[in-house]
Amino acid sequence: MSGERLEDWKALAEKEIKAPAERLIWQTPEGIDIKPLYTKSDTEELEHLGSLPGLEPFTRGPRATMYAGRAWTIRQYAGFSTAEASNAFYRKALAAGQQGVSVAFDLATHRGYDSDHPRVAADVGKAGVAVDSVEDMKILFEGVPLERVSVSMTMNGAVIPILASFIVAGEEQGVARAELTGTIQNDILKEFMVRNTYIYPPEPSMRIVSDIIEYTTREMPKFNSISISGYHMQEAGATLVQELAFTLADGREYVRAAIKKGLNIDDFAGRLSFFFATGMNFFMEAAKLRAARLLWTRIMEEFKPQKVSSLMLRTHCQTSGVSLQEQDPYNNIVRTAFEAMSAVLGGTQSLHTNSFDEAIALPTEFSARIARNTQLILQHETGVTKVVDPLAGSYYVESLTKELADKAWDLIEKVETLGGMTKAVNDGLPKRLIEQSATRRQVAVDKGDEVIVGVNKYRLESEYEIDILDIDHAAVRTTQIKRIEETKRLRDSATVIAALKVLTATARTGKGNILEAAVEAARARATIGEISDAMRMVFGDHSAVPEVVSGIYGRAYKDEPELITLAARLSTVSQTIGRTPKIMIAKLGQDGHDRGAKIVASAFRDIGFDVVAGHLFQTPDEAADTAVSNKVHVVGISSLAAGHKTLAPELVKALRARGAVDIIVVVGGVIPRQDYNFLLENGISAVFGPGTNILEAAQGVLDLLQGRLRNN
Amino acid sequence: MSGERLEDWKALAEKEIKAPAERLIWQTPEGIDIKPLYTKSDTEELEHLGSLPGLEPFTRGPRATMYAGRAWTIRQYAGFSTAEASNAFYRKALAAGQQGVSVAFDLATHRGYDSDHPRVAADVGKAGVAVDSVEDMKILFEGVPLERVSVSMTMNGAVIPILASFIVAGEEQGVARAELTGTIQNDILKEFMVRNTYIYPPEPSMRIVSDIIEYTTREMPKFNSISISGYHMQEAGATLVQELAFTLADGREYVRAAIKKGLNIDDFAGRLSFFFATGMNFFMEAAKLRAARLLWTRIMEEFKPQKVSSLMLRTHCQTSGVSLQEQDPYNNIVRTAFEAMSAVLGGTQSLHTNSFDEAIALPTEFSARIARNTQLILQHETGVTKVVDPLAGSYYVESLTKELADKAWDLIEKVETLGGMTKAVNDGLPKRLIEQSATRRQVAVDKGDEVIVGVNKYRLESEYEIDILDIDHAAVRTTQIKRIEETKRLRDSATVIAALKVLTATARTGKGNILEAAVEAARARATIGEISDAMRMVFGDHSAVPEVVSGIYGRAYKDEPELITLAARLSTVSQTIGRTPKIMIAKLGQDGHDRGAKIVASAFRDIGFDVVAGHLFQTPDEAADTAVSNKVHVVGISSLAAGHKTLAPELVKALRARGAVDIIVVVGGVIPRQDYNFLLENGISAVFGPGTNILEAAQGVLDLLQGRLRNN
Repeated sequence: MSGERLEDWKALAEKEIKAPAERLIWQTPEGIDIKPLYTKSDTEELEHLGSLPGLEPFTRGPRATMYAGRAWTIRQYAGFSTAEASNAFYRKALAAGQQGVSVAFDLATHRGYDSDHPRVAADVGKAGVAVDSVEDMKILFEGVPLERVSVSMTMNGAVIPILASFIVAGEEQGVARAELTGTIQNDILKEFMVRNTYIYPPEPSMRIVSDIIEYTTREMPKFNSISISGYHMQEAGATLVQELAFTLADGREYVRAAIKKGLNIDDFAGRLSFFFATGMNFFMEAAKLRAARLLWTRIMEEFKPQKVSSLMLRTHCQTSGVSLQEQDPYNNIVRTAFEAMSAVLGGTQSLHTNSFDEAIALPTEFSARIARNTQLILQHETGVTKVVDPLAGSYYVESLTKELADKAWDLIEKVETLGGMTKAVNDGLPKRLIEQSATRRQVAVDKGDEVIVGVNKYRLESEYEIDILDIDHAAVRTTQIKRIEETKRLRDSATVIAALKVLTATARTGKGNILEAAVEAARARATIGEISDAMRMVFGDHSAVPEVVSGIYGRAYKDEPELITLAARLSTVSQTIGRTPKIMIAKLGQDGHDRGAKIVASAFRDIGFDVVAGHLFQTPDEAADTAVSNKVHVVGISSLAAGHKTLAPELVKALRARGAVDIIVVVGGVIPRQDYNFLLENGISAVFGPGTNILEAAQGVLDLLQGRLRNN
Repeated sequence: MSGERLEDWKALAEKEIKAPAERLIWQTPEGIDIKPLYTKSDTEELEHLGSLPGLEPFTRGPRATMYAGRAWTIRQYAGFSTAEASNAFYRKALAAGQQGVSVAFDLATHRGYDSDHPRVAADVGKAGVAVDSVEDMKILFEGVPLERVSVSMTMNGAVIPILASFIVAGEEQGVARAELTGTIQNDILKEFMVRNTYIYPPEPSMRIVSDIIEYTTREMPKFNSISISGYHMQEAGATLVQELAFTLADGREYVRAAIKKGLNIDDFAGRLSFFFATGMNFFMEAAKLRAARLLWTRIMEEFKPQKVSSLMLRTHCQTSGVSLQEQDPYNNIVRTAFEAMSAVLGGTQSLHTNSFDEAIALPTEFSARIARNTQLILQHETGVTKVVDPLAGSYYVESLTKELADKAWDLIEKVETLGGMTKAVNDGLPKRLIEQSATRRQVAVDKGDEVIVGVNKYRLESEYEIDILDIDHAAVRTTQIKRIEETKRLRDSATVIAALKVLTATARTGKGNILEAAVEAARARATIGEISDAMRMVFGDHSAVPEVVSGIYGRAYKDEPELITLAARLSTVSQTIGRTPKIMIAKLGQDGHDRGAKIVASAFRDIGFDVVAGHLFQTPDEAADTAVSNKVHVVGISSLAAGHKTLAPELVKALRARGAVDIIVVVGGVIPRQDYNFLLENGISAVFGPGTNILEAAQGVLDLLQGRLRNN
């Protein structure tokens, strides 16, 4: 490329847009400046450009032939209600072209509670399948040949009892653990950052991770011992650089833990797998996977493996849940299709495509079929499988790969200076950075700087309802409790007690392998809750103090009439009631998805409200106590795990029972339109569905406050 | 790239697939060998690689800033029923984010018949809007500000009366013709090859094309005088090389015709536009547009323009209709999304995205919205607009660009040796090559070598009905006839007659401009039919003899049990009835889409049937005459233009009226499931919907024949 021609281009460009060409630079949330034009000169200096697929640094893919040899695995994450219902769903999906199973557990299971535990009544079978013991696990995989079908299990909190129960279920199906293929997520660090389905504090949690790596390295050579996950970071609002950096830094931390445990890098490196989200930034998402492989090779080289394959990053991807919208939901089919293409162009090894109703409820058979077909069409009809890493050489994509790698590496280095990821997590840096990104993104959407079709632009005049899958958690719970009772009745109590004692001792002494001990307990039919508790006795519970970022909404809306009007109204209300209106943002039940809650808390604080950020995992009674003792005027429940129909009315009752008849309760989050009336009839004053502009929500809350004042 | 590393890759690849790496080469229908791996060495020698967007040869795009400056125009092709109904549809779409109007006319209009003409009774308002005069045109654009909204009109046969009426409608809306923006398709050559909505023979048709170019060059500087269309070639089954080559060769022919007319190349080159299909081969479709621009520059250089912009190819694209399936129709949303992305990565200037129900019926408001949102999401949410030609530099895409350009150029040269495109069309070469490709493709699908999700693999256990838009053509016709009568009553007959006389004289003498004469006739309220007839008197009608390719099915299935079984059954039936069963493949009404009919005729002939290929545009009475005089046993009606509910029962009646009670009538093509029962109740023996395997259809026909023999 001669500089002269580039000057010609620039002159022409400026003529076209009647402005300096720099006007066309796109500043992404990652802090990357995307130019309107990339040419050969952008890639001439790039070191990674000569690489080939299957060869280090694997930028072009972990395998030489990639999809030309064999397409990625279509692995849909699913699970709901009982083991029977989920099993039927899996079998149907496998018959219709799905290639692997990926289990979604309910939140009770995630947090190590049996279905009969009083804290989890609203969560049983809701956002995943309820599994209480080996008996459920066996039903879950009935007719699914575990020697052939690989199984991925998203489990981190209760990872020990779940993996133990899976191993025993396999054995009792006639498949030795050495033959089991699949993946256990087992990635606890990101739980402390974003997803919050942890049980124990970070340090013992890391012990669990390394014990699992140790056990699977020895006993389960075909099973991925960990799925180091950036997915939930992006879901929580992380930029792609943050997702990339923190995930790889997590991976490095796990490798160090395993090596500290005495394992040889080459013995386990091949069973580490990754899990990334694929959002809407089409080329950047593809470049992200290429950069991830490049960086992982760099990280792994520090550990001086003998095998080249130990340097290789393999990954599962899932299209972005947070990119899907409740409004005009068929648009989500289109979004997911683009995201799926992106993940494939980046070279993923397996893929989950979200169903279009995912922003509202669990997939139905209809929506799950479209999601699965999206991948089948990609594999069979688009021709993109025929060529390995088809974007290679693209001036833009190669430049992006390099920029993402550089920016992520800087952040990884920053984590190193803090002493590694466990320390960084304790320090709170990753969580803080991610929450800031999430809030900035919401500001951009609320202000319309970022357009979401059907949400903040091109809206339907009136939204329509779609058929959704609603789970009767009470019925599921009854079934589960019956089966727990049956299991307990038939087992040998002495064996159970002995096995749990061994487990507790293993946890306490630091000697032996926790998973090994748990397998014995599971075989004796100890429940998920009992196995979790056996460790809880030693490790204790982790509890996090919710922090709220501030200033982002305030700065963004500084001179905007919307904020000025809001502030004026707030001050009127404050004068009337004698103090600043106080709102508690509450999370109830086992739902740890707190992105929405954090953003709302941050925005309301910037608007001028007095904000109380409730702790995670409160029962309605506990939340009512917090609300009353803090003398709040409003409680805003943020619900993303489908427990709202039970938990919200219970909170209203709990407040009334404490005499707090004046406290207004509103609900926001993933609430199907079908449920609005039910909530409004049960004491909820307003529902703010997905896609609500937060300043409009604040207007709504002020309306309610002023309405109440007028009525009094 | 060192050769040594490539050897390493090859060794690894062969280890992975346990076969020679050559096994991974993909031979496309274009005759291109796609390798599994492209590297830097594949692009080092490519001449076009240094090019920049906005600069010749425009491989990287016609404009310097492309979508970073301004996104492509979302232009949805639509029209149905009356001018009032279509107008309401356009206005709603424009309000919901659409950016230009694209008019679909009904087939009666296309073929130059007024709605009151007896030949077109079944076609009025069906597959497009019925327009009979300026009065309809004015209603069509009421409230659509023609000085701002650009209008594309797909019209080739009756291009003169339609464009004339549009000009007058604009004037009467207060917009001078010099201010009108938009495009008239005006591409008659491809009609003779594939789409068949011609009226006059090729030579006078070419005169019309050049008169339109002349007139618009002089009078309508903002209006694209022609849209040189490959779209319908791909729809008819052309490979991408064929589409590319024949389209560009058509363009060259039009330029020559205009120059022959005395026009200066620089005066009209900038108003030539193109129209390509975008099918499912993701990267090849993007590369096709890049290659098209490269080749067009090469072609235009021959004409030695002074302006660089005269070398520039600008194009509209439409996602592929033929890639859509009746089965499991929501899959079509996914297909269209991928195709749209592809067109955008190729650098299209405007885009139509098909609705998911397009394989069955006209779009509903619901399906049209999803189609439009597909583009809005691409524009606003994926980031692909931010960088010009983001695939540039990709080893694969650049290699593909070069290969497509080379292969298409060879075919263009072949056309040149035949004396140019008009001669090639007369000779029949393009039509023949395209029909061969179409038949080969159908064989691949029927044999399952090419997988179509939900059709020949992963089928639904039972298909569901979706809501479709059905047009009551009889009601539309009544309305139209009333308005024609009203128009004729109010106009000044003498002025009309005089204007039409001038038009006929202009056509006869070859002096003056046909469009100019037609504008006067339109202003006097001569109808579309009258203006067409005024030229028909001089030019006559074109009629084509249907030819059928042969041997493709026969060779592909040579030793396959399916064909052997069929042949055996056929021979049994032949023996019983004393001669080979004879089937007539009929096209009725103004529906010129004959891809399906041709493939079926070809396959049935290869199977061993005696096949009569019916002429296009027959009335049911004419088709019955053909069937009876040819003594056929079966008539297979191929219907793609929604006239089946009227025309098929009329054919049955016409056969019965001729005493041919034994002739079996079956229907195939685009038939909504909702209509199956109606057809079966009205004398049709079987319906073969889209996606039917042709060998299975032949089985079905033999079943019917044997059933009839048993009954007799």
